[in-house]
Amino acid sequence: MDRLIENINRYTLLNEHETRLLQSAVEKKVYQKNELIFTEGRIADEIYFVTEGCVRLFYNVDGNDRTAFFYSEGQFICAGESYTYDIPAIENYQAVEPTELFIFRKANIEPLLKEVPRFEVIARIATENELIASQKMIASFVTKSAEERYIDLLNTQGELFLRVPQQYIASFLGVSPETLSRIKTRVFAKRNS
Amino acid sequence: MDRLIENINRYTLLNEHETRLLQSAVEKKVYQKNELIFTEGRIADEIYFVTEGCVRLFYNVDGNDRTAFFYSEGQFICAGESYTYDIPAIENYQAVEPTELFIFRKANIEPLLKEVPRFEVIARIATENELIASQKMIASFVTKSAEERYIDLLNTQGELFLRVPQQYIASFLGVSPETLSRIKTRVFAKRNS
Repeated sequence: MDRLIENINRYTLLNEHETRLLQSAVEKKVYQKNELIFTEGRIADEIYFVTEGCVRLFYNVDGNDRTAFFYSEGQFICAGESYTYDIPAIENYQAVEPTELFIFRKANIEPLLKEVPRFEVIARIATENELIASQKMIASFVTKSAEERYIDLLNTQGELFLRVPQQYIASFLGVSPETLSRIKTRVFAKRNS
Repeated sequence: MDRLIENINRYTLLNEHETRLLQSAVEKKVYQKNELIFTEGRIADEIYFVTEGCVRLFYNVDGNDRTAFFYSEGQFICAGESYTYDIPAIENYQAVEPTELFIFRKANIEPLLKEVPRFEVIARIATENELIASQKMIASFVTKSAEERYIDLLNTQGELFLRVPQQYIASFLGVSPETLSRIKTRVFAKRNS
């Protein structure tokens, strides 16, 4: 809970009453490595905040899973369209290591948003954070090669490489595991030369 | 202005006072076909709302532009990371036809957000709308081929094809104009068979 409150207080200071209200509205849950947190076809009625661990977003394409993103500590996760419009989601979220999440259920959060205007600020900031992550991902898809995206990942989320199975990294880059091996060899040869 | 108020009233009803405050804080601006609205390297201090026309988001890669998205009527546009953290943007926005925007300047909007809690609701909804558009774009990059993305575009924003130069559509799909021609021939042959 501390990490969540700390994260929120970076933007807007909650008073004691607001902090207690927030604490009563969220729920902590621990997931095992590889456990599915949310699967496609359901209507998303929860927003997640990662306090520990790593969550993989993947889509199912004809039975093959395609990794789109890794969320780590301090990030909010929401299947936006499903949550907003109550339609079945296409997103799957999976813990790729032991992971602890705070869960905001829509049914608990909506009354709070009505009662306490400050929570609207928090909801906007959480949404902004996810928007920024999404826009960066799009820019990276549009402007960069797989090798450049690999180097970015190494520079910005280097610790992920120790934690996430390599086939997920390959799928995130849109390449085969063999191509990922070749990219790695090239990148590290350049770094060490 | 009507379209903006109408769009907002779908989510939360503004009273007369709030409507007047909003009107005083936004500014209408008309752009000619091909005019640049915002260019990379600047710090984004504006949010746009499209009331008429079409805006292309593109990134610059070694002097070549790469189209990432088309915004049409009723959509909000914001270079999220630049706007939130006051860092230079990598986004470029261009009117691809005569376009009318409402411009929300940060300097006008921030005091309103503090004074009128309802505007926080609006800011969250605008951010949510852009998040949903971004998440759909990511899902489409990750799960679909260029031909499937072409068919999606045809089904969801078919009128774009009449309005937008074909080289932008090709760049949006990540293919050459020649490949786009071949995709079109295949798609229409299937539709007419």
